[in-house]
Amino acid sequence: MSESHTIGQLAHAELFTATPERTLWFFTELLGMQVTGTDGRSAYLRAYQDSYHHSLVVTESQDAGLGHVAWRANSAAALEEGAAKLEAAGRGDGWIAGDVGHGPAYRFTTPDGHLNELLWEVDRYEPTDEERSASVCAVQKRPLQGVPVKRFDHINLLAANLPATKAFYVETLGFKCRERIEMPDGLELGAWLSFSPFPHELAIMVDSTGTAGRLHHLAFWYGNDTHLNDCAEALREEGITIEAGPSKHGITQSPFLYIYEPGGNRIELFGENGYFVLEPDWQPRTWTAENLAIGGSIYGLELPPTYFAYGTPNVEITDDALTDTLRHRPPPAQVPVH
Amino acid sequence: MSESHTIGQLAHAELFTATPERTLWFFTELLGMQVTGTDGRSAYLRAYQDSYHHSLVVTESQDAGLGHVAWRANSAAALEEGAAKLEAAGRGDGWIAGDVGHGPAYRFTTPDGHLNELLWEVDRYEPTDEERSASVCAVQKRPLQGVPVKRFDHINLLAANLPATKAFYVETLGFKCRERIEMPDGLELGAWLSFSPFPHELAIMVDSTGTAGRLHHLAFWYGNDTHLNDCAEALREEGITIEAGPSKHGITQSPFLYIYEPGGNRIELFGENGYFVLEPDWQPRTWTAENLAIGGSIYGLELPPTYFAYGTPNVEITDDALTDTLRHRPPPAQVPVH
Amino acid sequence: MSESHTIGQLAHAELFTATPERTLWFFTELLGMQVTGTDGRSAYLRAYQDSYHHSLVVTESQDAGLGHVAWRANSAAALEEGAAKLEAAGRGDGWIAGDVGHGPAYRFTTPDGHLNELLWEVDRYEPTDEERSASVCAVQKRPLQGVPVKRFDHINLLAANLPATKAFYVETLGFKCRERIEMPDGLELGAWLSFSPFPHELAIMVDSTGTAGRLHHLAFWYGNDTHLNDCAEALREEGITIEAGPSKHGITQSPFLYIYEPGGNRIELFGENGYFVLEPDWQPRTWTAENLAIGGSIYGLELPPTYFAYGTPNVEITDDALTDTLRHRPPPAQVPVH
Amino acid sequence: MSESHTIGQLAHAELFTATPERTLWFFTELLGMQVTGTDGRSAYLRAYQDSYHHSLVVTESQDAGLGHVAWRANSAAALEEGAAKLEAAGRGDGWIAGDVGHGPAYRFTTPDGHLNELLWEVDRYEPTDEERSASVCAVQKRPLQGVPVKRFDHINLLAANLPATKAFYVETLGFKCRERIEMPDGLELGAWLSFSPFPHELAIMVDSTGTAGRLHHLAFWYGNDTHLNDCAEALREEGITIEAGPSKHGITQSPFLYIYEPGGNRIELFGENGYFVLEPDWQPRTWTAENLAIGGSIYGLELPPTYFAYGTPNVEITDDALTDTLRHRPPPAQVPVH
Repeated sequence: MSESHTIGQLAHAELFTATPERTLWFFTELLGMQVTGTDGRSAYLRAYQDSYHHSLVVTESQDAGLGHVAWRANSAAALEEGAAKLEAAGRGDGWIAGDVGHGPAYRFTTPDGHLNELLWEVDRYEPTDEERSASVCAVQKRPLQGVPVKRFDHINLLAANLPATKAFYVETLGFKCRERIEMPDGLELGAWLSFSPFPHELAIMVDSTGTAGRLHHLAFWYGNDTHLNDCAEALREEGITIEAGPSKHGITQSPFLYIYEPGGNRIELFGENGYFVLEPDWQPRTWTAENLAIGGSIYGLELPPTYFAYGTPNVEITDDALTDTLRHRPPPAQVPVH
Repeated sequence: MSESHTIGQLAHAELFTATPERTLWFFTELLGMQVTGTDGRSAYLRAYQDSYHHSLVVTESQDAGLGHVAWRANSAAALEEGAAKLEAAGRGDGWIAGDVGHGPAYRFTTPDGHLNELLWEVDRYEPTDEERSASVCAVQKRPLQGVPVKRFDHINLLAANLPATKAFYVETLGFKCRERIEMPDGLELGAWLSFSPFPHELAIMVDSTGTAGRLHHLAFWYGNDTHLNDCAEALREEGITIEAGPSKHGITQSPFLYIYEPGGNRIELFGENGYFVLEPDWQPRTWTAENLAIGGSIYGLELPPTYFAYGTPNVEITDDALTDTLRHRPPPAQVPVH
Repeated sequence: MSESHTIGQLAHAELFTATPERTLWFFTELLGMQVTGTDGRSAYLRAYQDSYHHSLVVTESQDAGLGHVAWRANSAAALEEGAAKLEAAGRGDGWIAGDVGHGPAYRFTTPDGHLNELLWEVDRYEPTDEERSASVCAVQKRPLQGVPVKRFDHINLLAANLPATKAFYVETLGFKCRERIEMPDGLELGAWLSFSPFPHELAIMVDSTGTAGRLHHLAFWYGNDTHLNDCAEALREEGITIEAGPSKHGITQSPFLYIYEPGGNRIELFGENGYFVLEPDWQPRTWTAENLAIGGSIYGLELPPTYFAYGTPNVEITDDALTDTLRHRPPPAQVPVH
Repeated sequence: MSESHTIGQLAHAELFTATPERTLWFFTELLGMQVTGTDGRSAYLRAYQDSYHHSLVVTESQDAGLGHVAWRANSAAALEEGAAKLEAAGRGDGWIAGDVGHGPAYRFTTPDGHLNELLWEVDRYEPTDEERSASVCAVQKRPLQGVPVKRFDHINLLAANLPATKAFYVETLGFKCRERIEMPDGLELGAWLSFSPFPHELAIMVDSTGTAGRLHHLAFWYGNDTHLNDCAEALREEGITIEAGPSKHGITQSPFLYIYEPGGNRIELFGENGYFVLEPDWQPRTWTAENLAIGGSIYGLELPPTYFAYGTPNVEITDDALTDTLRHRPPPAQVPVH
């Protein structure tokens, strides 16, 4: 297995929301996550398999969108080396002393403008006696609230400049490209990157509105397709908009459910793992216009026009953007209708 | 539990296909069914939990469509009584001496023109030693071929005249209406009928093309949602067109997968049972325009325009028919897009 | 489908418990059931698909065990007719004026001493606005608490005199025997009865302690095997004793999980339906010593010695009873060990 | 994520069997694997997600047991470095020129005598046109035969000398210990090692018979618990002995099914992934006598006495070995029986 020597783990992400109360209701009551702290306009949350103080920060803001995404380095030394590389690459924003739940972090920005952090010191979550699992390898018991997600799984960024954003993560931080979409005109429509056997901890997709630095989605892991069905039913009953799914992507072979949390950010709920990148010399797989319908859904679901056009913060989706999106959409399934 | 005293069981259905070889490949290689006999242009098939000689007849024909559907009476006496009632209702076509796998059958026609049979004597399937299950309550082992369906579950008819077709099954044959769709203009768009705790052995939906006597689909039962996913992946890989799903209807709370078999007939694969009609004084539940999107899919999937317009035999779907269909379609999910 | 004309539905059962608070915690916090009323030493509960005021009564008592089991008749007339038949059979105990959630009930006792009720008038459960489902065929939304069971499914009685108990239900109340166990010495070890396509709403098993009138278990339905796994993990984490499962019986082809609720009564959690009795002339299937291991578990699990010996109220399990039980136990799987 | 710089991937394992025809029937007809070549007394097999020429070698031999296990290095350079380290550690057996499906391999032996290989060059499997998946990230379609396993997952070795065997893999090859069992007397009963986020690619358990160099099991991955149930039912119907499961270990949180293939080797079928080791500074979790019952099964299943005593090649299991095993067995669940 090949891997990054800098990045050890996806640590947490910060979501902006104009309706923090509803957003917190969504993550706690429906997805069974837990608030482990609050500070100013931010609340800190974790799922029951997340090891650290938090995997999600929900911060009140005028617009929805990504605050930042934080990566844990492979070691204290890897943090120093990573910061040096980022500074050398001209993408570094400097150190912050620490934040709730973690120590010093080096801030940096993608060419598209997404704010990232690299850190090493973290507070581990200590379950209460009542929460403690009988399994010593479990952080805590499965909660009895909602349809509880297990942990934060990956992040998907929209980029106005996909090639530069992808190159930055690959060249400066050691991510490997596992899968990609290339259209007939040579446009790279998406890239799925990881530093582990997961096909992606990070995905980057072209923003068809041309806006820079937006969020496509955060994904949380169930590891089980039945729980996607349970979740879809629960979310629908509670008035949450389901954008697509449950179904299963060909890309990364991931069973998915996409919804909008009340603040408007797209959230993916993720089912069982489809495959792992186990070959140390894995070569990126390329999806094309011919098989993109399968890439979108192995089961035949057509992804909606919003899928490549909507992101947060929300911007006007012009007809051009939709046309552009639709040009790249998988064609609808051919039904035997005259 | 209230019930029909005439009808005991859905026995089998006959599908017409212009490509019998491909249709048989579909049912045997992909769905794991078994050919138990052939006669002239017909082949007889069963799934591994079907008790009798066959539950499906595949007959070569110029067009796709329903040959006939056969119901087993509750007893020999119930067959005689049923035949008398059908004759009195002016819908009887008279007796046939029997057919492969069953004894005398009384043929009758719905007001919309669908051919039905009522019969009592049946040949039970006798498994070979190799097929025999270690479970004495199982007809045979689960096959090791394809993603094997368990048994024939229900039939869905398109009707130009839904009220008359529904009234016929209810009044003459004792079916009970369990659920129905009523549009704001009073139009009954669909009705789900049964003579058992299943919410439906028979569904009738309005044919938006105005054609009489067509088939919407036959449904086969998995009783398990994971097998719907397995099936969807297998069928897609083999080039079978998936119309919709896997997802779950609100109507009858049934997890579904709709595909077109190679002959063009729509087939439903059916997952776990959502609920049963256990109350002896159950009153029909009515779906309306307000909740029809949920009726279509609890998980939020939008059924495609073909769903109310395509049937077999295939006819031209005019713009009017599609408009009419779209008028009745659930509105798309509202996404937070300006 | 053949059926009883007297019995329409399994309505509810009453459990005795010396620890009502813990028993209620179990059913509400872990299984997601709801208390709909209390009266004296009794609390009334229902699962989210149960249609009536309650499907379970939990009553404080010195010992665990069955209070009574109640059946809903097929109609008001069927109630009168059933009461007359029971009285004629010498098993009637007379009418009670009604109870919380239902109208007049005719009480009767099995030859083994189990108390039963037959009733017609019931209070339907009316969900609050917040509980109401978007599906018109659903009683209410799936709860967000615990691993919520859907509904009360069946009851299993231990009998000192199985033949008399079985004959009573079949001859006086019209139940049909669907499956049975017969040992080489002719002893009928168990019988599975129903009045619907379910293989059982009522099971009766020999009490190897020779005690009359005890309860083996009440079963609640998930209709999904993954939820059995979720439930097993949740119950284990909360200190609930799991007797056996999740696994799948050959008998009735039912996926099962057996646990002891805090009051000591055995509860079964039930997964997906394995098969239905659809043939109107179904003949009882007989399990024997040769295939009883498969009857116990299709997957190969060996049921524990307690399975035929423990019931409520609890009695001393003598060595003789265990020996007797073990004599009837499926032999352990043969492993390739010298 | 911390990792080995030597080992990249578990590549394949060789099983000895005295009944190769039956063993091949088991892996191909029941588990849907494919024979990709034969050579002398060996057949080479792969599952549909295995990337290389084979993941399993079945070799005719007088006794059952492990032929060898092969690891793919992280790179050509890592192979050279690994060979040098092994030689320096005095455990190297030297190079072989290559074998069917792979290039030069360095052979080495654990202190307990298990034969291993380290290699780099491999032949990738090239699907036929008919086998090719529509997904570019899939090696091939899911087969339509049996209950098809996805890929080879891990190996579990029995060791007379667990501390030395474990130390060898950790110190010489860079495996990390993720979980372990330590008994009150200080005995380390088992260790679960990996070089990736999987909790184990390699497990080592104490051989209670005191025999050196035996195999406990090879594990193949479904990634889905429903397929474990499907598999258990299929295997049982075909007369395969199920030792334990389907259930779920606390240790590694792995859903399992243990069976004996016809040659007598224990095979594990593996369900959905329970958790991943994502923390770069993960510390080994230690199971003790107090929670070993949970370690054995989260769902409460008691592992049978054979579990720590039976391995291949088979040896006499003395009473002492069983006693020793039973001493370490989880106590049975406490049922409320006097």
